Amino acid sequence: MDNSINSEPQVNFAPPRDFATTLKSDLKETFFPDDPFWQFRDDKPARRVTKALQYFIPILEWLPKYNLRLLRYDILAGLTITSLAIPQGISYAKLAEIPPIIGLYSSFVPPLLYAVFGSSKHLAVGTVAAASLLLSSTLDDVVSSKDNPALYLQLIFTATFITGIFQTALGFLRLGILVDFLSHSTITGFMGGTATIICLQQLKGFFGLTHFTTKTDVISVMHAIIKNKKEWRWESAVVGIVFLIFLQLTRYVAKKKPKLFWVSAMAPLVTVVIGCLFAYFAHAEDHGIQIVGHLKKGINPSSIHLLNFDSKYLPTVVKAGIVTGLIALAEGIAIGRSFAILKNEQIDGNKEMIAFGFMNIVGSFTSCYLTTGPFSKTAVNFNAGCRTAMSNIVMAIFMGLTLLFLAPLFSYTPLVALSAIIMSAMFGLIKYEEAYHLLKVDKFDFVICMAAFLGVSFVSMDVGLMLSVGLGIIRALLYVARPATCKLGKVPDSILYRDFEQYPGSTNVPGILVLQLGSPIYFANCTYIRERILRWIREEQANTVSKGDILENVFLDLTGVTSIDMTGIETLIEVHRTLQANDIKMAIINPRTKVMEKMITSKFVDTLGKKNIFLSIDAAIDACQFSLQNLKQHNNAP
Amino acid sequence: MDNSINSEPQVNFAPPRDFATTLKSDLKETFFPDDPFWQFRDDKPARRVTKALQYFIPILEWLPKYNLRLLRYDILAGLTITSLAIPQGISYAKLAEIPPIIGLYSSFVPPLLYAVFGSSKHLAVGTVAAASLLLSSTLDDVVSSKDNPALYLQLIFTATFITGIFQTALGFLRLGILVDFLSHSTITGFMGGTATIICLQQLKGFFGLTHFTTKTDVISVMHAIIKNKKEWRWESAVVGIVFLIFLQLTRYVAKKKPKLFWVSAMAPLVTVVIGCLFAYFAHAEDHGIQIVGHLKKGINPSSIHLLNFDSKYLPTVVKAGIVTGLIALAEGIAIGRSFAILKNEQIDGNKEMIAFGFMNIVGSFTSCYLTTGPFSKTAVNFNAGCRTAMSNIVMAIFMGLTLLFLAPLFSYTPLVALSAIIMSAMFGLIKYEEAYHLLKVDKFDFVICMAAFLGVSFVSMDVGLMLSVGLGIIRALLYVARPATCKLGKVPDSILYRDFEQYPGSTNVPGILVLQLGSPIYFANCTYIRERILRWIREEQANTVSKGDILENVFLDLTGVTSIDMTGIETLIEVHRTLQANDIKMAIINPRTKVMEKMITSKFVDTLGKKNIFLSIDAAIDACQFSLQNLKQHNNAP
Repeated sequence: MDNSINSEPQVNFAPPRDFATTLKSDLKETFFPDDPFWQFRDDKPARRVTKALQYFIPILEWLPKYNLRLLRYDILAGLTITSLAIPQGISYAKLAEIPPIIGLYSSFVPPLLYAVFGSSKHLAVGTVAAASLLLSSTLDDVVSSKDNPALYLQLIFTATFITGIFQTALGFLRLGILVDFLSHSTITGFMGGTATIICLQQLKGFFGLTHFTTKTDVISVMHAIIKNKKEWRWESAVVGIVFLIFLQLTRYVAKKKPKLFWVSAMAPLVTVVIGCLFAYFAHAEDHGIQIVGHLKKGINPSSIHLLNFDSKYLPTVVKAGIVTGLIALAEGIAIGRSFAILKNEQIDGNKEMIAFGFMNIVGSFTSCYLTTGPFSKTAVNFNAGCRTAMSNIVMAIFMGLTLLFLAPLFSYTPLVALSAIIMSAMFGLIKYEEAYHLLKVDKFDFVICMAAFLGVSFVSMDVGLMLSVGLGIIRALLYVARPATCKLGKVPDSILYRDFEQYPGSTNVPGILVLQLGSPIYFANCTYIRERILRWIREEQANTVSKGDILENVFLDLTGVTSIDMTGIETLIEVHRTLQANDIKMAIINPRTKVMEKMITSKFVDTLGKKNIFLSIDAAIDACQFSLQNLKQHNNAP
Repeated sequence: MDNSINSEPQVNFAPPRDFATTLKSDLKETFFPDDPFWQFRDDKPARRVTKALQYFIPILEWLPKYNLRLLRYDILAGLTITSLAIPQGISYAKLAEIPPIIGLYSSFVPPLLYAVFGSSKHLAVGTVAAASLLLSSTLDDVVSSKDNPALYLQLIFTATFITGIFQTALGFLRLGILVDFLSHSTITGFMGGTATIICLQQLKGFFGLTHFTTKTDVISVMHAIIKNKKEWRWESAVVGIVFLIFLQLTRYVAKKKPKLFWVSAMAPLVTVVIGCLFAYFAHAEDHGIQIVGHLKKGINPSSIHLLNFDSKYLPTVVKAGIVTGLIALAEGIAIGRSFAILKNEQIDGNKEMIAFGFMNIVGSFTSCYLTTGPFSKTAVNFNAGCRTAMSNIVMAIFMGLTLLFLAPLFSYTPLVALSAIIMSAMFGLIKYEEAYHLLKVDKFDFVICMAAFLGVSFVSMDVGLMLSVGLGIIRALLYVARPATCKLGKVPDSILYRDFEQYPGSTNVPGILVLQLGSPIYFANCTYIRERILRWIREEQANTVSKGDILENVFLDLTGVTSIDMTGIETLIEVHRTLQANDIKMAIINPRTKVMEKMITSKFVDTLGKKNIFLSIDAAIDACQFSLQNLKQHNNAP
């Protein structure tokens, strides 16, 4: 039998590419899928340097083209996000159990750095609730924020520094791939769980409690609230509920009339201001309504000397830094990207990591704690019509002015007002519709989401996260371990071969079984693929026997198999041997470049014979029928 | 544009299968890929019970058909493997640092159980070197075999019991999938590394040392040998080298003339017998040649009362039991399977696990330690012409006789003879040609193999194993994270669309870009796939612009995509939105059942429009050109 008898094009048996070429192409696909250097090609050296600088420092690209018209938009947006940054800064700092002023500092330096290095036009920099709580719940294990606040603060700065180093390193090493393993389902569940426990924690502020638990899970928190029943203050609760209703009303207005988004954006600041006035004039403290307390004037002091790498705390600090760093990255990148898509722009995940990293390293030197791109602030920035990262600079300037002149005014803020602000923000993060959508479309995704939600709610934040990521990885491995195979048949009135089960009317040539193998063929699924092929054959034999036919040929369509390893090749050899022993011929259809290379180097091509490798199913069937005809002619010859 | 204008067959938009159906089919593929129940279909209840019993207890199937002719073969094979079992049993028990008699016990009870429950005809049951050493090196961490031999032995039996429970559970839960993650490369490297350190350990016996290290890595062992230079005994070394040369010679003979396999199979027993005679008559002990020492007559005593579940040792014991259990399974199943393939028979991995599990549970009750199907013994059994598992029964009977009458005779066996036997067996396990083959065919497989080899040699056995398995899993995840995509073109003179790079002469229709996506589309690779598609489009646009054309259509061929999750669907939606913003139309080609189901439930089909989903690339191109024609006619209309 010769392949050249049919006019079909020939299979490409080109010798394998050399190792350097394969390695280069694999590394490129793994670390540079977006090919960031394409824009530097075919350019003069001088222009290349400019382009490279602009690539790494995006402000160099947009600032020269900046004009007054854009500035007008950015000032408005910057002002709006400042009004959100002040209450959020104070509130989230309370969540992290650090002095509230640190929260304000964190909206001064980091936004300036992001404006220089960040690639998103809409992202607004700030602190986030989930990471704040995670930081405090992790660090509280080694140092109590109450008994030793100075040391605790040192560890917070150190953790922020480590987050920065980690994020920068991920960016430079192009390991954005790590963030990919935090799936959307994991983040939905994690955010929902975090929002739930943060809401519950706010009950401390609502009831004006002074004793509370440092644990974060639902049961401990509920227990702490009920145990300290005697401390409950109705005055505090009433004020809190009033604020909460006000905030939720403004959110409702903004949702109904998107143009009035500023109503809800300004509401937290209004709450704080009213709260301050109320506390000042009503002497709220005397009625059991606690206030924030003294806030120092002046911009960020240096905190380099506070970084503490004591080996006693380092493991916990490193853990806190890396886990919060990953979560902050996932939130920041996902949010930057989703707004970029709305405007049809592109964001480079690895560059964003470097920007976040710089932001946190410099932040840890200047009394800031972990910052990223929080959802609420970014959404407000976008709705307020920001045009460039200049809005972050505007926010930094206003925040600087606040720190220099207005900070002491906020010292009368009632804690219960902050609790109401946090609670109201958290309500928006519990996305039950999304969980329901997952339940309908993909049960496994729903399980991954609920693992994060329940784990965070009932055990702890890191356990919930690990559980969910672990399930995601098991799912990915299960996929690799059980790639779908199917039997192909010819769709009626066409030349197409498609899945028999999907297109039930399909027919096959008697005596020939065509199987499409799933990808990849790997050590982890070889046994499965072998068993599955043999089972298909057994079923087909039972089928053909009942029709009085014999199964003589098995074609393996490798079109979808993009990769194979040594164990995979050995499995194909085993299957070939088993089929030979049963007098069944095996042919391979359309092996892809990488598969063909392995088949050649491992000499499987020689074992199988080049004549049994075809470019299409039709070519294989033709060759089969031709050889059958030849045989008959030969037998009939006189 | 209407899809029905062309005569092509229609895409199957059948509503998604319900959850129960999908779950059932997924579970079946995951746990029952070989469909073990197929043989029970369409049968009467009585016959079904018989068949089920025969399925779970294979001896019920082959024993009724057994005859004298087969027995003749099996007796010969059984005798041959007994002659191997005696020296191996004593040697490997020394490796595990337990009384040598336990090694002999372990070839009495377990083979009987395997003969009843095992599905392989060629597997010979026995102890293995790697697992023996791993057991001792793990348990020595908590209890010294020298200082507290009684407790140490209890832990050995307990570990064996746990191995048995673990293996049985894996079998019943159909978790053979776990063994799949021990790739061939990992096993090659692990075996090579283990063989290396075991060989080095034998230098203790060769030099007649009494002081030695309990560590297993190359550096500690070499250090121990050099440090104890004063204890070196030349007499012992000379005897050892003579035995080793004899054993290697017989191996060489067997390799050259496969018919003389029995020469090498008998050699260890001959070595032991000569060693005993020599030690007895030459009073070897007085010349620094240590002997095995007292061996008690009688068959296996009960050891149920010796099982020790003290919580102080339990974690280590469980770890030892599970790790050695996995390795034993991997070796036993791989070896049983490779011989079954030679004879064109089939082995059920899950059933084998259950058989191994029973073997070890009962073994731990009857003074046996970990047993599996060792390579050397199985190969000898196969070459000796065994026909059924009866050869294991024959071995057990001979071993029982040995224990009852001959055991004390072996007490004179010189330790150095055992060292020579172990060393000679280990030489065969260092497969450098295989490592070289891996290096040539698959560099990553080579790295996985070397990680196991170097890890075992220079750190410890479990570190080497974990490292290698970890790399294998990272590789699998990397594959999932970076599925290959390619641009398709029409191969000249054909109707086939193939990879542009693989078939360089291929052409494409101007204005249309056809991309084939890799599988699966998952949260872990969504970012990558998005970036990659956009990069293909960018490159294609640069291409078409230079030709004066415009890219108007992007077709995504999903033929190879067997699975997609929610994040994947969202990525497709994002890509669609980005393309729309750039005035590029997107079409999907041939979505498979599972993908189509997700596309329907997530309403992506409605967003994209059913008219943009095609069964083949040709259909999509036709539809495209038809609409273009229509447009032109419309424009030309008066």
